[in-house]
Amino acid sequence: MHVVVPFDAREPKTRLSPVLDPGERREFARVMLHSVCSTVEATGHEPTVLATADPDIEWPVRVDDRSLSDAVNAMLAERDDPVAVVMADLALATPAALKRVFAADGEVVLVAGRGGGTNVALARHPDFRVDYHGVSIRDHRERAAAIGVDPTLVDSFRLSTDVDEPADLAEVLLHGQGEPTAWLRDHAVEVAVSDGRVTVQRNE
Amino acid sequence: MHVVVPFDAREPKTRLSPVLDPGERREFARVMLHSVCSTVEATGHEPTVLATADPDIEWPVRVDDRSLSDAVNAMLAERDDPVAVVMADLALATPAALKRVFAADGEVVLVAGRGGGTNVALARHPDFRVDYHGVSIRDHRERAAAIGVDPTLVDSFRLSTDVDEPADLAEVLLHGQGEPTAWLRDHAVEVAVSDGRVTVQRNE
Repeated sequence: MHVVVPFDAREPKTRLSPVLDPGERREFARVMLHSVCSTVEATGHEPTVLATADPDIEWPVRVDDRSLSDAVNAMLAERDDPVAVVMADLALATPAALKRVFAADGEVVLVAGRGGGTNVALARHPDFRVDYHGVSIRDHRERAAAIGVDPTLVDSFRLSTDVDEPADLAEVLLHGQGEPTAWLRDHAVEVAVSDGRVTVQRNE
Repeated sequence: MHVVVPFDAREPKTRLSPVLDPGERREFARVMLHSVCSTVEATGHEPTVLATADPDIEWPVRVDDRSLSDAVNAMLAERDDPVAVVMADLALATPAALKRVFAADGEVVLVAGRGGGTNVALARHPDFRVDYHGVSIRDHRERAAAIGVDPTLVDSFRLSTDVDEPADLAEVLLHGQGEPTAWLRDHAVEVAVSDGRVTVQRNE
């Protein structure tokens, strides 16, 4: 199985701007990428980073500056072996959670992201293609059905949590043990309760 | 094992007011309660509804108008068998997801809710008590540790999704097959994408 971790280095994570400045957002995005790649490696697979520009990282990199969907689909079209696409901002991913996905039966295995995204897609069928635009989990289920595949959905809170907004950082602080959690603590990002909702604040 | 589903009938789900009026919120809260109880039953356990007032439902009801934590702790103190506490607004709960929790090893088994909550707590230790105030998942882990128990955390997106805000309804529409999803469709609540984020709108 070929495991791909797409990474867009251009202006990452703008919705975190209430908490992190542009330089911090770039650094944190890279910390998450490193963490996801390490987690993939801990499952026994070597990740390939599919990046818009070379991120200078210790795993193989393929540079493709097209859209996420186009770059992933080019890779899917090339390869004969199963391909797993794991988002680079899954700061709560653990080897155990990813192993559940990689071990799941089915020609198409999907993990939903909160908010309609697709945080992991594992294609064992040659005709499956991705479209990350819009409510992609719905589209991916329909695309699987269109090629005669009943997709397998893996139920994981850890993998459903991609990091886009300040509230997502609270999840990372509450449930993470890895590099992204340590980075947030080092940068004085703390869990805060405001109006009954959990979010984060800077304490400095 | 004794399975308890707490239900607060007073002014439920006020944060859904941008989408549902007070009567609809009460009705939808009850639909979710019914769905959770049916799901518990499908795992082979009879649920007991622990309610602030009698909800007139086909499963056993225990009325206790104290706070959620006090009412649950009174039950935990009384019983010698394991007790599982399953929140009434887990509209995406499935028998498979709950079975993973009930089958998990450990004297304290927890499922985190998004935003720091505790959506399922299974106590097999006589001294475990709950406190749902604030960031309860953190408190429950600490309370387990304080009685010498390393809590088991079950990783489930379905069970982490309690329904509090309009965006949660989008998750129910995207991933549910049960009564709450059908109720939302019947009431013209639809998935909408606004500003790149998934939420819901009424279409009537």
